[in-house]
Amino acid sequence: MPLVRISLMQGKPAKYRAAIGNAVHRAMVKSINVPPLDRFQVITEYASGDIVYDPTYLDIKRTDEVVFIQITMNVGRTVEMKRALYRRVTEWLSADPGIRPEDVMVNLVEVPKENWSFGNGIASYAQ
Amino acid sequence: MPLVRISLMQGKPAKYRAAIGNAVHRAMVKSINVPPLDRFQVITEYASGDIVYDPTYLDIKRTDEVVFIQITMNVGRTVEMKRALYRRVTEWLSADPGIRPEDVMVNLVEVPKENWSFGNGIASYAQ
Amino acid sequence: MPLVRISLMQGKPAKYRAAIGNAVHRAMVKSINVPPLDRFQVITEYASGDIVYDPTYLDIKRTDEVVFIQITMNVGRTVEMKRALYRRVTEWLSADPGIRPEDVMVNLVEVPKENWSFGNGIASYAQ
Repeated sequence: MPLVRISLMQGKPAKYRAAIGNAVHRAMVKSINVPPLDRFQVITEYASGDIVYDPTYLDIKRTDEVVFIQITMNVGRTVEMKRALYRRVTEWLSADPGIRPEDVMVNLVEVPKENWSFGNGIASYAQ
Repeated sequence: MPLVRISLMQGKPAKYRAAIGNAVHRAMVKSINVPPLDRFQVITEYASGDIVYDPTYLDIKRTDEVVFIQITMNVGRTVEMKRALYRRVTEWLSADPGIRPEDVMVNLVEVPKENWSFGNGIASYAQ
Repeated sequence: MPLVRISLMQGKPAKYRAAIGNAVHRAMVKSINVPPLDRFQVITEYASGDIVYDPTYLDIKRTDEVVFIQITMNVGRTVEMKRALYRRVTEWLSADPGIRPEDVMVNLVEVPKENWSFGNGIASYAQ
């Protein structure tokens, strides 16, 4: 159910980008009850001027390794689950592919259950 | 009013991508009362590792022809209208450019009417 | 807190794209109380068939210079603030890089405060 958009600066190998996708997905499975097979992601690389970040906002030192992770998912997760998600995504991106915690930005967009079709023209989660 | 983001794997001709845009737009006009001229879409192609999908989630067999369609639109459609939208998008993508129903994924993001400006710096739909 | 996605047709120099990002950010700071350092944007160029717009919807004459600006931000702005934002974005894009007001499209997506992490794995705005 989540649709994940990952944005980063160009210049990293495919393996690095795949590791980002893996870390984000595993963190969602572990922290917010996303089914393990429920994985849908797009990863976009930007030229340096086309991904813009503030290098000090909220006193966090960011670099060109910054990654924006925007997750569209169903409503219903508690604030505690969201906190756990941020913590895990950041930990696992730090482990592999080795992204500094300061460079990880996550944003959640929530939608009702009937807002998804996962194939065959059916509202996959509507009652 | 809808802003539609279409994502697919690279390698299809422009005509194929245009057919996707056409099918999605016609389905919105027919199923959820989108005005025929209200068409705003972006289509992005991804290298094979940069668009990630599960090949069996919910027992639906997906292939590299998978298409993600994310539609930002006004709130207010009923579940029945959304069901009709999914059905029609999928039918018409199957007719042209010939995408298997299993490979069509749709996600809706809803916003209030005052969240749009369609030009001239005006809130186009606010009262 | 806002994450801004800017979409335009390919063929403009980096300086032109940067001017768009600047105008949008300044308008948000001035109109909807976005902190000056709170700037996170991605800019994507599309081939002409891959960015689709209606050239007359709502009797506004659009051209290939059209720009779609999608802003994900916290809930809580009044309709008046949103109106001011549309007005300012459009004025400032007209001043630099010189985009016609008819060619500026803005869409807002609102999320609750706990839906952001700006680094270090923390829910930056949650209480």
